[in-house]
Amino acid sequence: MRNNELTNLLNIKYPIIQAPMAGGTTTSQLVAAVSNAGALGMIGAGYMNPESLRQQLQEIRKLTIYPFGVNLFVPNEFYISEEEFITAYERLKPIRDQLMISSNRPKLPKYEEELSLFHDMVQVVIEERVPICSFTFGIPSTEVINDLKQHGIITIGTATTVHEAKLIEEAGMDAIVAQGSEAGGHRGNFSQVDQDSLIGLMSLIPQVVDHVSVPVIAAGGIMDGRGLMASLWLGAKAVQMGTAFLCCEESGAHDLHKEAIVLAQDNETTLTRTFSGKWARGINNQFIQQMRKQEDLVPDFPIQNRLTNEIRKQSVAQNTTNYMSLWSGQSPKLAKKQTVEQLIISIIDYVEQTKY
Amino acid sequence: MRNNELTNLLNIKYPIIQAPMAGGTTTSQLVAAVSNAGALGMIGAGYMNPESLRQQLQEIRKLTIYPFGVNLFVPNEFYISEEEFITAYERLKPIRDQLMISSNRPKLPKYEEELSLFHDMVQVVIEERVPICSFTFGIPSTEVINDLKQHGIITIGTATTVHEAKLIEEAGMDAIVAQGSEAGGHRGNFSQVDQDSLIGLMSLIPQVVDHVSVPVIAAGGIMDGRGLMASLWLGAKAVQMGTAFLCCEESGAHDLHKEAIVLAQDNETTLTRTFSGKWARGINNQFIQQMRKQEDLVPDFPIQNRLTNEIRKQSVAQNTTNYMSLWSGQSPKLAKKQTVEQLIISIIDYVEQTKY
Repeated sequence: MRNNELTNLLNIKYPIIQAPMAGGTTTSQLVAAVSNAGALGMIGAGYMNPESLRQQLQEIRKLTIYPFGVNLFVPNEFYISEEEFITAYERLKPIRDQLMISSNRPKLPKYEEELSLFHDMVQVVIEERVPICSFTFGIPSTEVINDLKQHGIITIGTATTVHEAKLIEEAGMDAIVAQGSEAGGHRGNFSQVDQDSLIGLMSLIPQVVDHVSVPVIAAGGIMDGRGLMASLWLGAKAVQMGTAFLCCEESGAHDLHKEAIVLAQDNETTLTRTFSGKWARGINNQFIQQMRKQEDLVPDFPIQNRLTNEIRKQSVAQNTTNYMSLWSGQSPKLAKKQTVEQLIISIIDYVEQTKY
Repeated sequence: MRNNELTNLLNIKYPIIQAPMAGGTTTSQLVAAVSNAGALGMIGAGYMNPESLRQQLQEIRKLTIYPFGVNLFVPNEFYISEEEFITAYERLKPIRDQLMISSNRPKLPKYEEELSLFHDMVQVVIEERVPICSFTFGIPSTEVINDLKQHGIITIGTATTVHEAKLIEEAGMDAIVAQGSEAGGHRGNFSQVDQDSLIGLMSLIPQVVDHVSVPVIAAGGIMDGRGLMASLWLGAKAVQMGTAFLCCEESGAHDLHKEAIVLAQDNETTLTRTFSGKWARGINNQFIQQMRKQEDLVPDFPIQNRLTNEIRKQSVAQNTTNYMSLWSGQSPKLAKKQTVEQLIISIIDYVEQTKY
């Protein structure tokens, strides 16, 4: 397996990055196992707070001496009135009733609070000397990027089109994740003109690499050595894999979630914004079907996410996949329950055979 | 460039198939140039009649001694009442007015007539000893498949999911085009459970090749040697390229159509069923935007196709792209105006350098 400028920059052996899946999937065991196996482990810190992030960073440092990274969600401006918030909350009542949830309405989210939390998280990344910090849902301010760079932290942005990739390069970031339409979980698009962008990797990677000079990381549907080789031939310098790592034993995803993926057909994933207010890909289930007619009505991220938080938690507590967000890319038939080490060794064995 | 079982079966030098784009794009010059260059030229005969197909076959035979193929649309059952047909026709009145079209309402299409035409087309393929016949929109009857096979004609089906690929293999066809969500023009899905299938090639190819034993052809967004190499690594035995050949000098696509593709951004294609009644990918234009609210109202293929026929023709006659169906895959930024020979040589040169 050849090294390239990106593996050198990130100081990793193999051009494989574990996608920073937010919401408890990226346990310290997962992140450390990935980094220990020669790839790059990533904490999906999008829903964390400074204390929990700091604690996890210290935990991971006890489990690996190799580099790993943190991913943060860049807050997008939003506003919702108390009245609209209550209406959106009431729309979910039938589902709360089905789960017999009696808890109170969550607190009204405020953009200023989200932004302040984001800046606190950036400070933790700097103080704890995390070597790599990636971003989704937007480009951080010049101040944040400069602050990270001055502390020697490598920055990575997430793009879904050539246009977004150029914006990330212009902002001075070091590498770009090009997220194809195949990807599970949240769509990373952030530019208004790219809001409906759903470009497959076969199209996206070569077009992006032709128009930026920083290294490009392919993300979406990649599960094995074939996907890695294809991505490298298209011009990517590494791959970022989510679903494949989510199904690993070390991941914090619920067992029923892993099982739902392993048993799914390739045509069973769908896009919905009813879980969080942002389009995301997961396995079609009762929640998505029941909410389908409200796709256009749900408030933006992170408002809807806060409103469905208790529903998703209770679905887990009640051991049913009906109301879980079963995030998955479009390749569930390639998913396996295995250890991180088995996954990475199988990829590298395949690639070594090709004498690449 | 290594040979494989598919290039041997099709008797072609390179694992490249020119997509059978219907509606006048696949001129005899295009098909012959492709076959002469060592790839497989294909006639998109979906909208042709037995006389015009027979004439083109004879024309191509004067231009090349190499194999080429024909693609047919498998008719799907449909029914529309005279009243519904008139309503659908009236909905297009604002657009006819904009183009100052005063022609009469077209004839009501009937399934029986479409099916009878399809069988006549199959007979032409047999009588003219066309070596390869591919199908879109469904699987022909066992009688048709057997009839073709008994005459030594190689049959190829089009699938958009593992499920559809298995159905094609079970029907006894010789190879499968796996059409990714990146593809321009009509979606090839035909099974009810796959009606919303939009799986990117990075996911689709490895999942399909794991579940069928016949050779798989990758289609969607592939424009150059990078796409070919990536597809081969994913497990495909050849690629089928549409947009790249559409932009070639020999293609019959309107110059304004070629220009619109070459100038487009990667995020400018969209899916619509308002041109034909079947979902298809093209560059977003005035017709698509104006008809957006009617997506769910337009009658099924081929009814809507017949209703918009005069509109598309007049858009061409009046030299405006506003009402043309500007079919394009998701890689317009990789498109070039060039000759077929230049396109194929550039792909093969790239691949030869890789020593594949």
